[in-house]
Amino acid sequence: MFRPVQPAPMPGQILARGVCRALVGLNFAPLTEQVPAPGLRCDVMALGPKGEIWIVECKSGRADFTSDRKWQGYLDWCDRFFWAVDADFPTDLLPAESGLILADGYGAEILRMAPETRLLPARRRALTQGFARAAALRLTALRDPGAVISGGWT
Amino acid sequence: MFRPVQPAPMPGQILARGVCRALVGLNFAPLTEQVPAPGLRCDVMALGPKGEIWIVECKSGRADFTSDRKWQGYLDWCDRFFWAVDADFPTDLLPAESGLILADGYGAEILRMAPETRLLPARRRALTQGFARAAALRLTALRDPGAVISGGWT
Repeated sequence: MFRPVQPAPMPGQILARGVCRALVGLNFAPLTEQVPAPGLRCDVMALGPKGEIWIVECKSGRADFTSDRKWQGYLDWCDRFFWAVDADFPTDLLPAESGLILADGYGAEILRMAPETRLLPARRRALTQGFARAAALRLTALRDPGAVISGGWT
Repeated sequence: MFRPVQPAPMPGQILARGVCRALVGLNFAPLTEQVPAPGLRCDVMALGPKGEIWIVECKSGRADFTSDRKWQGYLDWCDRFFWAVDADFPTDLLPAESGLILADGYGAEILRMAPETRLLPARRRALTQGFARAAALRLTALRDPGAVISGGWT
């Protein structure tokens, strides 16, 4: 089987792995790099057992956070929004009204629960459907690379 | 990386692969072996661009079909229901009111579109959510086997 060379993960992606592990432990199904709306790409989006939608942005350091001008745009696309950072991150930088997760590559822990702003039903429906299709298509592509090629999926 | 030995695919699973490829080409996101309700396991469930839910049951031969006493149960969990069979299958056996797909391991084609019986919104919501969570959890497990072990997901 052909396997493309994988680039080394970026620091944010390493945190995302630990975040995903913790989310699975909380009975949330995580999906990385999901696009809830054009121009927005979430580090981690997760779907809870009651349909709750969480977004977690992983920040590897001060520069990574201060260069992010889009994060407030994520608030409209989830019920709860969290930052995930490692133990060295200067957490005073982060807005106090967001959730906070301490993460490394192997796991994560919620230090501060994010406040809940519930999505309207139509948006939740569209987000859940987009999440479902993206996850299933990626899973299909991973299990059968020929599916994407022969199916012309982009 | 540890890779468990994969058993050889069953004839129905080979058809399912071709069906998934064709579904991707129709802009449907396929998921194999999804369980829409306790005791029911679909060969292929797929989610369309407008949220349509299709179920495809893959039958490798006469005995596989005649031993299936559960198929009518699937009708309540999708908008359209199809049989997928190979070129040697005696299609006269199949109920004329179901959709029909001709498949092999590399692709498939819809020979007869299934009639539509639209799901009620609450059931569609629950099915889409279950589909999304299952696909994302399987994708997570495939990309990071440690997620399932450390997260305790079953």
